[in-house]
Amino acid sequence: MNLMQPFKSELGLTTGIITPVSHVIRRSLSDMRGMYADDAATERILAQEGDRLIYEVYPVDLPEEEGHILHSTTIIYPGRVSDEYHMTKGHFHVKRDRAEIYLGLAGHGYLLLQTDAGEVSSVPMQPGTIAYVPPYWAHRTVNTGSEPFIFFAAWPGDSGHDYGTIEKIGFAKIMVERDGQVALVANPKYI
Amino acid sequence: MNLMQPFKSELGLTTGIITPVSHVIRRSLSDMRGMYADDAATERILAQEGDRLIYEVYPVDLPEEEGHILHSTTIIYPGRVSDEYHMTKGHFHVKRDRAEIYLGLAGHGYLLLQTDAGEVSSVPMQPGTIAYVPPYWAHRTVNTGSEPFIFFAAWPGDSGHDYGTIEKIGFAKIMVERDGQVALVANPKYI
Repeated sequence: MNLMQPFKSELGLTTGIITPVSHVIRRSLSDMRGMYADDAATERILAQEGDRLIYEVYPVDLPEEEGHILHSTTIIYPGRVSDEYHMTKGHFHVKRDRAEIYLGLAGHGYLLLQTDAGEVSSVPMQPGTIAYVPPYWAHRTVNTGSEPFIFFAAWPGDSGHDYGTIEKIGFAKIMVERDGQVALVANPKYI
Repeated sequence: MNLMQPFKSELGLTTGIITPVSHVIRRSLSDMRGMYADDAATERILAQEGDRLIYEVYPVDLPEEEGHILHSTTIIYPGRVSDEYHMTKGHFHVKRDRAEIYLGLAGHGYLLLQTDAGEVSSVPMQPGTIAYVPPYWAHRTVNTGSEPFIFFAAWPGDSGHDYGTIEKIGFAKIMVERDGQVALVANPKYI
């Protein structure tokens, strides 16, 4: 049998960058048109300040197969679109019963989760927080702080990513700043 | 469907302790009789200084089932038995094709790996190192430094632990101090 050889990567615990860099996934505001509640604010930002980098993902290259543990870091830059904090697109796993773990490394934010039935849950994250995404929960992360929110994630190799469902229906709740506080409120666009 | 609810734990990034503590696995020298190459040294330590704590594991309580991501931290205390560095027992996964990842948090050490065919590999680890245990490799960790070697680990929920094979046959190579340097040498007890 031709076995995969052991190997290592180096994670900058303060920068969130994993080296060697295989590839980087960058999501700008224009990649997320329609995902923030205030579409007019999105278009205004794009017109007035140009495109804005929302987050970056540094994955380690591995086969997307049963038995492997896929892993990456994510850096969500601080900011808001109107009153809604910068966030990732969010996704279900194609195999809905595949879990995921997040380990906070820097900054502050939330893990936001939602079931197929529309139930929402949120978990606050700071450096050292291990947040658990149980089977069957869609998951998105949100930077509610003023510094980059950086975390490490690991999930089963055969999970698969279903981004389409969340792109279509969104989350039932969104994280916004209200009177200088972080608030989880109903998403006006959610049907 | 009755879904598991999301939850979080807090990992002390410098202490390695995960709270809330569900249970702690402690392995002392007496638990590892016969695993170090120099059995006479093991017995001499037990007789002269009493039992010695080698390592502790802080796991997060989760079902050991397909789809989940099990995770824990390990703290290996510095020291040697004769010239052989403190290490964990090491194991294969019962499902041999289940991988594992390690993330170094504090201290210095090595991930030591071995196939069923007896091939050995080693990966140096420092804070920030992500060491990958590919499918089919038994794995053990070794503290080659003078401080506690602390790391986070994650593996598929249905991996299972086979400690028996390594307890019986050992690793073909051991990590020892030779002339003040870390050296990977043949295990005199390995058949």
